[in-house]
Amino acid sequence: MRVALVQSAYQGSKEMMREHLAQKAKEAKEQGAELICFSELHDSHYFCINESVESFDLAEEFEEDCRYYGELARRLEVVLVASLFEKRTEGLYHNSAVVFETDGSEAGRYRKMHIPDDPGFYEKFYFTPGDIGFEPIETSVGKLGVLICWDQWFPEAARLMALKGAELLIYPTAIGWFPDEVDEEKVRELESWVTIQQSHAVANGIPVVSINRVGFERDASGVLEGIAFWGNSFVADSGGTLIYRANGQESLGIVDIDLGLSRRYRRIWPFLRDRRIDAYDEITKRFID
Amino acid sequence: MRVALVQSAYQGSKEMMREHLAQKAKEAKEQGAELICFSELHDSHYFCINESVESFDLAEEFEEDCRYYGELARRLEVVLVASLFEKRTEGLYHNSAVVFETDGSEAGRYRKMHIPDDPGFYEKFYFTPGDIGFEPIETSVGKLGVLICWDQWFPEAARLMALKGAELLIYPTAIGWFPDEVDEEKVRELESWVTIQQSHAVANGIPVVSINRVGFERDASGVLEGIAFWGNSFVADSGGTLIYRANGQESLGIVDIDLGLSRRYRRIWPFLRDRRIDAYDEITKRFID
Repeated sequence: MRVALVQSAYQGSKEMMREHLAQKAKEAKEQGAELICFSELHDSHYFCINESVESFDLAEEFEEDCRYYGELARRLEVVLVASLFEKRTEGLYHNSAVVFETDGSEAGRYRKMHIPDDPGFYEKFYFTPGDIGFEPIETSVGKLGVLICWDQWFPEAARLMALKGAELLIYPTAIGWFPDEVDEEKVRELESWVTIQQSHAVANGIPVVSINRVGFERDASGVLEGIAFWGNSFVADSGGTLIYRANGQESLGIVDIDLGLSRRYRRIWPFLRDRRIDAYDEITKRFID
Repeated sequence: MRVALVQSAYQGSKEMMREHLAQKAKEAKEQGAELICFSELHDSHYFCINESVESFDLAEEFEEDCRYYGELARRLEVVLVASLFEKRTEGLYHNSAVVFETDGSEAGRYRKMHIPDDPGFYEKFYFTPGDIGFEPIETSVGKLGVLICWDQWFPEAARLMALKGAELLIYPTAIGWFPDEVDEEKVRELESWVTIQQSHAVANGIPVVSINRVGFERDASGVLEGIAFWGNSFVADSGGTLIYRANGQESLGIVDIDLGLSRRYRRIWPFLRDRRIDAYDEITKRFID
């Protein structure tokens, strides 16, 4: 399966963003991509950098957004993973990934389950935690375990997707540094981010595709300076080996993923055989004290 | 907290092994170690390399083994993690880690929960899966989440230890290559092994100590050539950064671990706050089909 990872910076407006992504998707298709993945909330700047009721306006055209990306998928005859700000009703919003089939229809949708909230990433203000659960999305290129950003830190999410038959994990992401962080801490954060996602490939014997933003986005509220999204989108194969890793610049990654390797690695190290499901009950507790 | 990782090869007999380990423990104590960790089933060769009823003899002196290592802990005034072949009754054996306090008493014991079984690692023949569960062991140097080897591939085990308050994960291990594996696959296996354990530090915000065997051990049955245990014992801090990594030779690692970093990293990235415990029920299923 040939996958495209479109690692983009915010282009300045929704229109410019769409033009940019459509161009990258076209290039990806020309290079044989069957599955195209964008980073998190790609249509706008990363508005969660501050809390502003005006930013909810960005979700007003969600239905139209879906039609637009469905049409893009249809036109290029690819499966496309879009990451959109979903308005469900007044005062109820989700951070959602919508997957479109090659005919433009919606193959399925995932609503981000784990919602972060820390300085510069005020997502709990904007998004209700997902209520669909961890359900892989069946497509013509495979069963996709689509998760979003913060979900990547939770082994439970990856495991549940794998147990439900996901053949591939996909993480649209928006993660970066603050300018005032020391270099050593920046390295730690970036490498932890790669490690935890690689580990989902290892633990579950399925590939992982992670697509991050790049570029510096200023905090218009003036509270923070801004966020430098670190890029480094990557693909780990079913054995956990990194077979692609971008740098911190805009890039289009075209990567061949062999889904057949899952069979090989799950035979060598059959973790699913040996899980102690009789002893995992307390995973559903907040803390065991 | 100063920890010692004793990465040893099998010395040829139980007596020689004990002499070797006692010497290394003494050196560790002289260098200020408060906690000393040995690798998996350190008193003997890795007998699980084949299935032989005679090998059960190795567990006959389990009570005496405990007295011996308790006495060693008392003499050096250290907390000691021993990995022993436990005979519980006739025909019932465990792969157990026994933790001894500085006064020589048993602080607690862990019985390996996930039991592997693949060519050269016939552990399901020898060991009944543990029935104590994932219970951290309270000691004078901290609450230790002791797990063993194959457990390291299961994020559920690390998570449960963390939820029960473990301040540190410790994995006595016996893992290696077969001589006929290609180099690329050897690298993949080794790096996957490091990655999955580093990820437990990242996901849970606690340090991980992993102590592996080294050296080549021949398969006396002649079915396999043998196993080259790869060493590479390591320590990851609470943020997942490797702060110590041995090579493939015998070594004594003396490492200072700052348990206080857990507070720092769990504040920066508060994963425990955001776990979707309402949506993890199906983790206790074998497969969701």
